[in-house]
Amino acid sequence: MDRLLYGVAYYDEYMPEERLRKDMEMMREAGINVIRIAESTWATEEPEDGVFDFTHVRRALEAAQEAGISVIVGTPTYAVPPWLAAAHPEIIAVTERGAGKYGARQNMDITSPVYLYHAERVIRKLMECVQEYGNVIGFQLDNETKHYHTAGPNVQKRFVRYLREKFGTVEELNREFGFNYWSNRVDSWENVPDVTGSINGSFRAEFEKFRRELVTEYLAWQSELVREYLKEGQFITHNFDYEWRGYSYGIQPDVDHKAAAEAVTIAGCDIYHPTQDLLTGAEISFGGDVSRSLKQDNYLVIETEAQGHVNWTPFDGQLRMQAFSHVASGANAVMYWHWHSIHNACETYWKGLLSHDLQPNAPYREACTIGADFDRLSEHLVNLKKKNRVAMLVSNEALTGLELFRLPDGKTKYNDVVRLIYDALYELNVECDILFPQDEERLGEYDFIAVPALYSAPDSLLQSLAGYVKNGGHLLATFKTGFSNEYLTVAHERQPHLLTECFGVSYDEFTEPRNVALVGDELPVAGADRQVSTWMELLTPTTANVFARYGHPFWGRYAAVTENAYGKGSAAYVGCMPTKAYLKAFLRRRLARAGLWGTEQKAEFPVIVKSGVNGLGKTVRFYFNYSMEPRKQEYFHGHGVELISGDLIAHGSELELEPWGFKVIEEG
Amino acid sequence: MDRLLYGVAYYDEYMPEERLRKDMEMMREAGINVIRIAESTWATEEPEDGVFDFTHVRRALEAAQEAGISVIVGTPTYAVPPWLAAAHPEIIAVTERGAGKYGARQNMDITSPVYLYHAERVIRKLMECVQEYGNVIGFQLDNETKHYHTAGPNVQKRFVRYLREKFGTVEELNREFGFNYWSNRVDSWENVPDVTGSINGSFRAEFEKFRRELVTEYLAWQSELVREYLKEGQFITHNFDYEWRGYSYGIQPDVDHKAAAEAVTIAGCDIYHPTQDLLTGAEISFGGDVSRSLKQDNYLVIETEAQGHVNWTPFDGQLRMQAFSHVASGANAVMYWHWHSIHNACETYWKGLLSHDLQPNAPYREACTIGADFDRLSEHLVNLKKKNRVAMLVSNEALTGLELFRLPDGKTKYNDVVRLIYDALYELNVECDILFPQDEERLGEYDFIAVPALYSAPDSLLQSLAGYVKNGGHLLATFKTGFSNEYLTVAHERQPHLLTECFGVSYDEFTEPRNVALVGDELPVAGADRQVSTWMELLTPTTANVFARYGHPFWGRYAAVTENAYGKGSAAYVGCMPTKAYLKAFLRRRLARAGLWGTEQKAEFPVIVKSGVNGLGKTVRFYFNYSMEPRKQEYFHGHGVELISGDLIAHGSELELEPWGFKVIEEG
Amino acid sequence: MDRLLYGVAYYDEYMPEERLRKDMEMMREAGINVIRIAESTWATEEPEDGVFDFTHVRRALEAAQEAGISVIVGTPTYAVPPWLAAAHPEIIAVTERGAGKYGARQNMDITSPVYLYHAERVIRKLMECVQEYGNVIGFQLDNETKHYHTAGPNVQKRFVRYLREKFGTVEELNREFGFNYWSNRVDSWENVPDVTGSINGSFRAEFEKFRRELVTEYLAWQSELVREYLKEGQFITHNFDYEWRGYSYGIQPDVDHKAAAEAVTIAGCDIYHPTQDLLTGAEISFGGDVSRSLKQDNYLVIETEAQGHVNWTPFDGQLRMQAFSHVASGANAVMYWHWHSIHNACETYWKGLLSHDLQPNAPYREACTIGADFDRLSEHLVNLKKKNRVAMLVSNEALTGLELFRLPDGKTKYNDVVRLIYDALYELNVECDILFPQDEERLGEYDFIAVPALYSAPDSLLQSLAGYVKNGGHLLATFKTGFSNEYLTVAHERQPHLLTECFGVSYDEFTEPRNVALVGDELPVAGADRQVSTWMELLTPTTANVFARYGHPFWGRYAAVTENAYGKGSAAYVGCMPTKAYLKAFLRRRLARAGLWGTEQKAEFPVIVKSGVNGLGKTVRFYFNYSMEPRKQEYFHGHGVELISGDLIAHGSELELEPWGFKVIEEG
Repeated sequence: MDRLLYGVAYYDEYMPEERLRKDMEMMREAGINVIRIAESTWATEEPEDGVFDFTHVRRALEAAQEAGISVIVGTPTYAVPPWLAAAHPEIIAVTERGAGKYGARQNMDITSPVYLYHAERVIRKLMECVQEYGNVIGFQLDNETKHYHTAGPNVQKRFVRYLREKFGTVEELNREFGFNYWSNRVDSWENVPDVTGSINGSFRAEFEKFRRELVTEYLAWQSELVREYLKEGQFITHNFDYEWRGYSYGIQPDVDHKAAAEAVTIAGCDIYHPTQDLLTGAEISFGGDVSRSLKQDNYLVIETEAQGHVNWTPFDGQLRMQAFSHVASGANAVMYWHWHSIHNACETYWKGLLSHDLQPNAPYREACTIGADFDRLSEHLVNLKKKNRVAMLVSNEALTGLELFRLPDGKTKYNDVVRLIYDALYELNVECDILFPQDEERLGEYDFIAVPALYSAPDSLLQSLAGYVKNGGHLLATFKTGFSNEYLTVAHERQPHLLTECFGVSYDEFTEPRNVALVGDELPVAGADRQVSTWMELLTPTTANVFARYGHPFWGRYAAVTENAYGKGSAAYVGCMPTKAYLKAFLRRRLARAGLWGTEQKAEFPVIVKSGVNGLGKTVRFYFNYSMEPRKQEYFHGHGVELISGDLIAHGSELELEPWGFKVIEEG
Repeated sequence: MDRLLYGVAYYDEYMPEERLRKDMEMMREAGINVIRIAESTWATEEPEDGVFDFTHVRRALEAAQEAGISVIVGTPTYAVPPWLAAAHPEIIAVTERGAGKYGARQNMDITSPVYLYHAERVIRKLMECVQEYGNVIGFQLDNETKHYHTAGPNVQKRFVRYLREKFGTVEELNREFGFNYWSNRVDSWENVPDVTGSINGSFRAEFEKFRRELVTEYLAWQSELVREYLKEGQFITHNFDYEWRGYSYGIQPDVDHKAAAEAVTIAGCDIYHPTQDLLTGAEISFGGDVSRSLKQDNYLVIETEAQGHVNWTPFDGQLRMQAFSHVASGANAVMYWHWHSIHNACETYWKGLLSHDLQPNAPYREACTIGADFDRLSEHLVNLKKKNRVAMLVSNEALTGLELFRLPDGKTKYNDVVRLIYDALYELNVECDILFPQDEERLGEYDFIAVPALYSAPDSLLQSLAGYVKNGGHLLATFKTGFSNEYLTVAHERQPHLLTECFGVSYDEFTEPRNVALVGDELPVAGADRQVSTWMELLTPTTANVFARYGHPFWGRYAAVTENAYGKGSAAYVGCMPTKAYLKAFLRRRLARAGLWGTEQKAEFPVIVKSGVNGLGKTVRFYFNYSMEPRKQEYFHGHGVELISGDLIAHGSELELEPWGFKVIEEG
Repeated sequence: MDRLLYGVAYYDEYMPEERLRKDMEMMREAGINVIRIAESTWATEEPEDGVFDFTHVRRALEAAQEAGISVIVGTPTYAVPPWLAAAHPEIIAVTERGAGKYGARQNMDITSPVYLYHAERVIRKLMECVQEYGNVIGFQLDNETKHYHTAGPNVQKRFVRYLREKFGTVEELNREFGFNYWSNRVDSWENVPDVTGSINGSFRAEFEKFRRELVTEYLAWQSELVREYLKEGQFITHNFDYEWRGYSYGIQPDVDHKAAAEAVTIAGCDIYHPTQDLLTGAEISFGGDVSRSLKQDNYLVIETEAQGHVNWTPFDGQLRMQAFSHVASGANAVMYWHWHSIHNACETYWKGLLSHDLQPNAPYREACTIGADFDRLSEHLVNLKKKNRVAMLVSNEALTGLELFRLPDGKTKYNDVVRLIYDALYELNVECDILFPQDEERLGEYDFIAVPALYSAPDSLLQSLAGYVKNGGHLLATFKTGFSNEYLTVAHERQPHLLTECFGVSYDEFTEPRNVALVGDELPVAGADRQVSTWMELLTPTTANVFARYGHPFWGRYAAVTENAYGKGSAAYVGCMPTKAYLKAFLRRRLARAGLWGTEQKAEFPVIVKSGVNGLGKTVRFYFNYSMEPRKQEYFHGHGVELISGDLIAHGSELELEPWGFKVIEEG
């Protein structure tokens, strides 16, 4: 990428009046240099079966070209036209809940040949059309693709074929999945039962894995199609999204992002996050770190909020802060969903940059300042590179495992453990990369790896973790790590499986804490912050030092948190769910042990410090104030120039940070 | 109507033993002068297909005749017999949730020709039978008719025909509903998708409107049938009911009461309400005002509770108070559902006037005093007329709109806003009429119109509201008024659509309040009563005076409540959801501005004052004490006679009101 | 039974590695003398249709034989193999919610001839196999059998036949069920509607009764089969379970335990209960009393927890205490579910005695002490007999009645009233038997009978209760007793039906209490403990003494709790839901009145005292301390030997009870 992109999703198709010239003019005034078009407008592009009409697409491309605005073209395939569903109702996915109905987007069976046939045809027609224009810089494959819980008979037939190829014989299948239990043993491939009725967690987890592979396959298929038309310099991306809890929260359960990202040349994502009083930057940072780690490169924020959900209407300064927060994590694009607010259908209250009246409003006026700064500072901010020494290992399989075998409170999920650790690191200003099971070979690139609740993992991955420590790495893992294999079969040795030596602890009992606190350590954490929730393993150390025990009349004899020297490295184990405050204090100790308690750690949330090296080879420092109060913050890094104001900033000088304000200093 | 009706629903069919003579005797002793029969007893009247047996109906009519009791005959059509559903299962409505099952009442497809054929036949047979008796004073069409969410293929075919007739072309349909969104654009009428799967709010809202028209049509059809048999002096009514929240709460979502009431000669309704400590009279007053406004005339309370739900068992005096409260709102009948408590089926705990033992009980003994008073005072209380200067405008379309585009707390609904305003007026002793969109021409009859959250309205209605103010009317509207047109398409100008001049404000942003209070005004309201909840629009005044602003570090620059002089009138806009306490204080100010702060406003809830003019041309004043404590209340009105005691009451004298007690004074 | 059984469920089928010899050795070391096998392993026993393979069964039998361990063989029929469901999908029960799916256990149609054909075949094959072995001591029919809500067309056809046989004519059916209501009257047997859509409580309740009979019939059928193969000395049992609220809570709604128990020669049951801080022993006692009362004999605890659910991981001493608690209630067997923790499927976190690592752990080590004590003390503890003077009458029909006509808070259920009374008696150390409607003739065997909310009962049962009092019995019943007949038809006389003379009270109104306390008595109960919840009947005494009234401005004139002398006995009526504290105080008074306030009542929960007479004719006393604190407790009974320690214990001496500790003294 040669410049920072600032953009919006734009739909000529949805406009209630002729606005195209006016919109492009307003965009140019705001410094918006890219629009995303065409995604989800299949019914406009192909109004009748086999009849194509790209008027809106051409209009947008031409008007953008005139205005000097680049275009990302999305394939329109994630929402099918009524005529297609009317003629072929079977393209709507049958799910665990039964047959679906036409109406919503993202509910088709992505394996349906009927769907694929029509999708291919419209993609090819669209590609032929848009490649006539010179301002198309890249393509987005579909949008937020998932498997939409497709589970009809055709999908299950295919799943049985997948099982047969994987396991060879039903005997092996029975053994791996423990099908003897409750008389689930199968005698032949044709009698494998409907997975949606099954109580066998191994079987269901494998189906989830299989369905994630359908997504990978689907995106690869679209990528192949688009590549046939690709011109020099054009990229292929996809808008990956995260576990949704009203905003982008955690690892996406239904997609293997790492595998699916092979279909794209640059990663892209949705990041929606709370704002107003609740803006912390954590989701921007988390989503960015995941996205950056997919291709180990810069990424595009293809969708984020300008106004968005009704309680995200930004306070003054927040829109700017959000845009620079994305850049500070390595984003090369910040794009709003979408340009204008929608007047019909169902997303009327998911507001765009403009409100329903299509006139300049407070967010638009703030966007103008962002666009101007992005334009002016582009070469200082684009392609920002990071060399993080800390990583966190996440896993779809672990997530699925804890979905099928829930923690006893019924509420705490895998992503809660992920975010507990991530947010603790974030608040300590420890930047980190994300590792996936596929990155097994790359563990050694990091000095410190955090592993939240790795409930399900193949032996090789657990052995790699142990090897990582043996070779000098510093590991911190939580409860439930190494509990079951890749098929959710629980190990029949003492836990944690394959890691007892590495951690120097083992256990065979666990329970749910009731009035249990962590005791015995000297961390500066008190009261409610010492409480244990959700889960506690009754640890017995072998070689480990007991760092904290359980404060409880019966469980007091067991360890809760341990530290172990192993080979050239060290391994800490947290056998329970601590509070974020406790975890931060313990991480501070563990990071120091790994030699990672450094400059950035002198500041702490709500002041967030991010760094990167730009294409000019210079280091850029971002200091953010995620709070309602103005703050004075010492500047810890090398002297340089504050890019927005042009002020010189000396090492050790005091930065004055406005509420929801920030400084960007280029060192040297 | 020539006398006040006091009655019960009576079902000889349900009696566990021979009771007919005994029941009539007990009724006569209680002063009960009317019974409602036959409703919902189709299976008894037509025990087999085409075999009719009106024994129970005849028995009841004859016994009532002997006892001098009048009869309202209900058509039995809202519960179909088992043989009909067994032979024609398709008469049970298919809804959004799929096929229904026989068993409950009110779950048939009211458009089914099979159903209509059988319904017509039994109605005609019943009419022939009952018109032999001289004590039939009127007919009730069906009961609490609704569309029962019928949405099967036949209904949707008809809906497409309705759309075709309304919009002419699919292009027009696509444009009005914004079907381009998410690829919902339709290419032909035969490909219009199943509305029950749609995410398009415009489409769904239109279906709701269409289904409400099915109810209107159905009642008109029954009315035509009954009219063929009608004799001089007999009325036709219907038992309309309200949004149900365990009691009669608000505007009925599934029926256009105003349109449907064209089928009747006198309006009738259900009013169930909390009692014991929670008896406020507000539901009696609200339901009464709606019902009275349907035909702008007196109405019948066809069902209300004697005991009813288990936690409504009345305290001493409450049954009397309730009966006179209905009369004070203009009811010409107070009828209990029903005479005796039911010994089987499902409404065993919806107790009647008598308990299960069928003996005189506490409620019966109190009913005897009511019956005696009604009888004695009938000419003073019947046909009470009101000339209210205040009205509230309600709308099914606005209700549906806020159902499909919910307020962000997910809980607050249209009827909550309706009741917030209504209850504030009620507690201030401001009697009001209810206006419907069909009353557009009648706005000028009122000095003050309150408009809760008129989310969806055709331009003409909004223009009429502006015209009303211009011509001297006083308007108060809340947030969300004038947000979208009749198809839920949001206006693409500054909000409120067509009313920015009238209110002298506009806005393009809104949010959900978090710790926001109303500030800047001098209303005597403090603390939590100043909090804003649910919704806030960030108002910018043009010509309006800012009455209150938002107390908030960022939103403080916006107006919250405004007042505007416009033409000869004035218009106040409340851009957020205030507390009832705040709204009452503001209404006091607005009503005074309109010259409506008068005599009644010297009392306030729990003392409620109601007035009307009786057939003798005299004004009758009701003073109610809705509380557990005895109260002394100054009598503000002209001297007169307290009708129950016969005492003379002088202007300015002190009324002693018992707990749950009241006085009725006929002036002059 | 000639010795105390200590056992586990054991599944060679589920073992992740060859463990058989090792397991038997570990069991023998722990004193485990019985295993339960084969239950739910149909797919292993008959891996293909008609192909049988009892390898695992034989292996287990042989290894157990070598280890001197007895075996209970369970028929495998409660979980069907995949091949059977694949070939005959109709064997999966169609329920109110529609068609089921294969996958879970216990979801077949137990009336399906296809299912029964295959079930019979596998049972016969299994019986032939296992009867070759000498260590089989008994058989368990199926497991936790219920009707699984089977409600498909075939079942409903059968239900109509059942109705026809019971009622003879549809006229009688219409009359008994009150089918006139809402037009539900049926004209012919073929038009009886689908019961699952019905709103008629009588109809639905009868269907529940019918479905309970299906369970009785099914178990009788299996019993007949097994009896064909039975050898001298072998028993037949079944694993009855209780209403499940995350643990064994109350009367089982879906099975008539008393009737179904005719199929077995010894009763058996599941008892799962909270532990850790929440261990009270109440569920152990309740489940035991029910089970003992089924055959009026000792019973087997076929399943209980060693570790079980994750928050039941036992504290030190609790596993011992639990085992002896079962014995103290008359259990002849304590068996854990199951030996080892499961590594797959869905019950991975329902841990066995061993954890997943299959090694000795804390619970196993404690089990070793239990096994040793059971072995050593077997003749002192086995076949413990009780002669209780107090009983509680429970009823499936009452339970169903209160399920269909719920108490107004929507939460309180029949079993809450049952447990309120049971727990009060338990905490007062009053041991009791359980009576069922079938025990009508046996009421006279008790001095005191407690009757919780007997909502539905035939006249004969109510007359028997009245007769019981007349003949000198002491009765205490609660609200709702005698409200409706066996068809849920409410009596049309003053309530309580047929018992107004016996209790000397009647009522015709009731309500839900709001801020109502019990007043007027001198019980030493204060404050919140006097509150009334859920339900209150407005009682009027005829001959009764008013013991307590309602503290309320309007309801104060009614009685709440009454006492009546009737014939030679006495009858107390509690017209509302009191607190447990209040009820205990009132029971103390009532029991004293019946001459039942005795020795055991000197102690109170958390000290629980249980007694029985062993086969040596000696009385055994158990003193339990269900608490975290050590306690000193006076020993009230005759001098004897503490069986575990061998210490002599004198009357009046002080027992030192450890936290979760106990003493067992054999008198004389």
